[in-house]
Amino acid sequence: MGKEFLDLMDPDDVKQIIGSLNIGRRVETVNLGDAHQRVLAGDVYSTIDLPPFDRASMDGYAVRAQDTFGASEDDPITLTLIEKIRAGDVPSKKIKKGTCSEVGTGAPMPEGSDAVVMVEVTDIRENRVEILEAVTPGTNRALRGSDIEKGKFLLSLGTLLTADKIGALSAMGLKEIPVFAKPTVAVISTGNELIKPDEDLRHGKLYDINSESLANAVKSCGCVPLASNIVKDDYKSLKNKINAYKNADIIITSGGTSAGAGDVLSQVVEDMGEVLVHGISVKPGKPTLIGTLPGENVDVVLFGLPGYPVSALMIFHGFVAPFLREIAGVKELMEKRDGFLLPLSRRYHSARGRSHYVLVKIEEDIADPILKDSGAITALAEADGYFEVPKNVEIIEKGEQIKVMPLSGL
Amino acid sequence: MGKEFLDLMDPDDVKQIIGSLNIGRRVETVNLGDAHQRVLAGDVYSTIDLPPFDRASMDGYAVRAQDTFGASEDDPITLTLIEKIRAGDVPSKKIKKGTCSEVGTGAPMPEGSDAVVMVEVTDIRENRVEILEAVTPGTNRALRGSDIEKGKFLLSLGTLLTADKIGALSAMGLKEIPVFAKPTVAVISTGNELIKPDEDLRHGKLYDINSESLANAVKSCGCVPLASNIVKDDYKSLKNKINAYKNADIIITSGGTSAGAGDVLSQVVEDMGEVLVHGISVKPGKPTLIGTLPGENVDVVLFGLPGYPVSALMIFHGFVAPFLREIAGVKELMEKRDGFLLPLSRRYHSARGRSHYVLVKIEEDIADPILKDSGAITALAEADGYFEVPKNVEIIEKGEQIKVMPLSGL
Repeated sequence: MGKEFLDLMDPDDVKQIIGSLNIGRRVETVNLGDAHQRVLAGDVYSTIDLPPFDRASMDGYAVRAQDTFGASEDDPITLTLIEKIRAGDVPSKKIKKGTCSEVGTGAPMPEGSDAVVMVEVTDIRENRVEILEAVTPGTNRALRGSDIEKGKFLLSLGTLLTADKIGALSAMGLKEIPVFAKPTVAVISTGNELIKPDEDLRHGKLYDINSESLANAVKSCGCVPLASNIVKDDYKSLKNKINAYKNADIIITSGGTSAGAGDVLSQVVEDMGEVLVHGISVKPGKPTLIGTLPGENVDVVLFGLPGYPVSALMIFHGFVAPFLREIAGVKELMEKRDGFLLPLSRRYHSARGRSHYVLVKIEEDIADPILKDSGAITALAEADGYFEVPKNVEIIEKGEQIKVMPLSGL
Repeated sequence: MGKEFLDLMDPDDVKQIIGSLNIGRRVETVNLGDAHQRVLAGDVYSTIDLPPFDRASMDGYAVRAQDTFGASEDDPITLTLIEKIRAGDVPSKKIKKGTCSEVGTGAPMPEGSDAVVMVEVTDIRENRVEILEAVTPGTNRALRGSDIEKGKFLLSLGTLLTADKIGALSAMGLKEIPVFAKPTVAVISTGNELIKPDEDLRHGKLYDINSESLANAVKSCGCVPLASNIVKDDYKSLKNKINAYKNADIIITSGGTSAGAGDVLSQVVEDMGEVLVHGISVKPGKPTLIGTLPGENVDVVLFGLPGYPVSALMIFHGFVAPFLREIAGVKELMEKRDGFLLPLSRRYHSARGRSHYVLVKIEEDIADPILKDSGAITALAEADGYFEVPKNVEIIEKGEQIKVMPLSGL
């Protein structure tokens, strides 16, 4: 049994190291119908004029505006109705002096017309339309290309495709678009004590938690978890398993990082590649390891998280998630959306010199810290989010506003 | 061409009507691996004790605490090492006076031991362990069931299954769980002018936007969109299409709700069921229709949205999304997460007596209202969210804090 003490690194330094890591982004083409929550891999320019033709923007009558000048409720001007044009129709008659055509919203403007009089300020008797209000040229008409002209910039590379953005792409008649391929993440739980669901719970054994919880946390960052695995906590098993995932973009292990009995991960990573971080000055999650392994094209990044489920998830949120979001291209949006300020339910005391991640339960808009150890499963069941206590803060007073980060994501 | 004016209803009254609607919830069983972002359909009680056995919560030596009393760095107490127990092992030897066993974090406590001395405060020479610090009974030990006992409450019906909650369920060794089936939503675009992607853009035609954007907005509320459709804006086509979706939970149409030319939806709904709302005092989206149709078991709820894409999405977010989130069981969580306060970039003037929904672009933490008409596709491309101006507010000053709601979701 070794007694190797970890050389703890400052969280900010660790974040800088993570920030300098790089993985190649791949591009793939998807149908617009499968593009929800995907990220545009190129700038999109309009392929058509929008609207594609001069159109009515109200239900009413297409007129020559000058024919309506002087019209009022007391002194209406009467025009002759020559055609009815609904959205989707093609007008066949030209508007000449003294005439008008009925138009529905979205209908093409007939030749010769330059404005639409709303139906609400007209009266109609057979084919005679009384105009009760004058209009100026351009009223209730949208010119071809007035929203966007063909060839103009529409959406930028990196846009997260929510419903509204997919709507904008649909307007171009696009069927497929290029998006970033989702980064692949292998999730490996290490530990001789771990068993799979439905297996018999013999003495000394535990159902594996981290492979499911981390796989789902990976999904919430816009990445694809590869099949989850349990491996024995010995050098050869772990090395073989890690070797099997050299085609993944990222490998996340949990367990096997503590100084002391069973710390084999650092040895495996050292032998296969490079250990960049081993030990972070945070609580929980101190024994975290970060390294790189030579991959097929670029290096595979490996995050070795602690075995305790709460520690593993907190380190995931604090260090791994920002990296995954970055390479998946969803970082900016997620951070725009992340976090809400709530008052703390009680005084919280933190050890100076180490950042703390604290799970909270939200009740009646107050954040209540969950003060359980990081092996507690019930902490996961109760948590609505977490907050971070920076390393130079020792006490947060009751009622002070804290920024609660959600545990959910995409 | 009719001139039927809409009888505008107050938005709060409309929300009350929507709140009184009901659809039956269905339950289905899914594998834990497919449970991400699903909603628990029943309370979950622990099926086992957690931890399932007395375990060490640190790397170190399992001892009888009383054997360590008086130990200090200057005056260590020496114990005889009788066994090495790693996580996953089953201890075979009992701790008696003067003996100890090496334990890894998570290893079962050997019989007779009641505390763990951390490896950091020990020295070892062959099988002689020097204890440099006394411990009290229970130190660094977690008793069986101390986190949660078998049969105790773990997670409640209605919980959204994020990574952490799935972790808590994994701890029970569960393979499958009951979740609410996702409500099904048929999305129908009406309009003679609408064409599908890749079709030829003839004069007077437009690529359909709403069926894609609304289908994706439906997904973001935890519901399943059924295949999207375009139908002609005539009574028979629309009625046939609506009839085809009587097995859906909800039908969303867009277009065909304006007073004037082509308003056939209200007639169809009136003939097939009941119109509850036709016209809301909001901008954009005034001509919105809400109705119910007799379904196979319970009524099908129909939302008839305006045809303009911005109007359709704004009414979706303001009125339809809260209902979908409610019946999908994700409302509470989404609303916890929704909305952030930002200063407005410029004075905004709104017409009194009508609620306004305004799209905004966020730049450098300032919300800039997008002042385009609701037919503008570029507004969708630029938008980062929207805010609501209540009906009794006429002016929001530059710099005033507004609550920006995201356009994204699950």
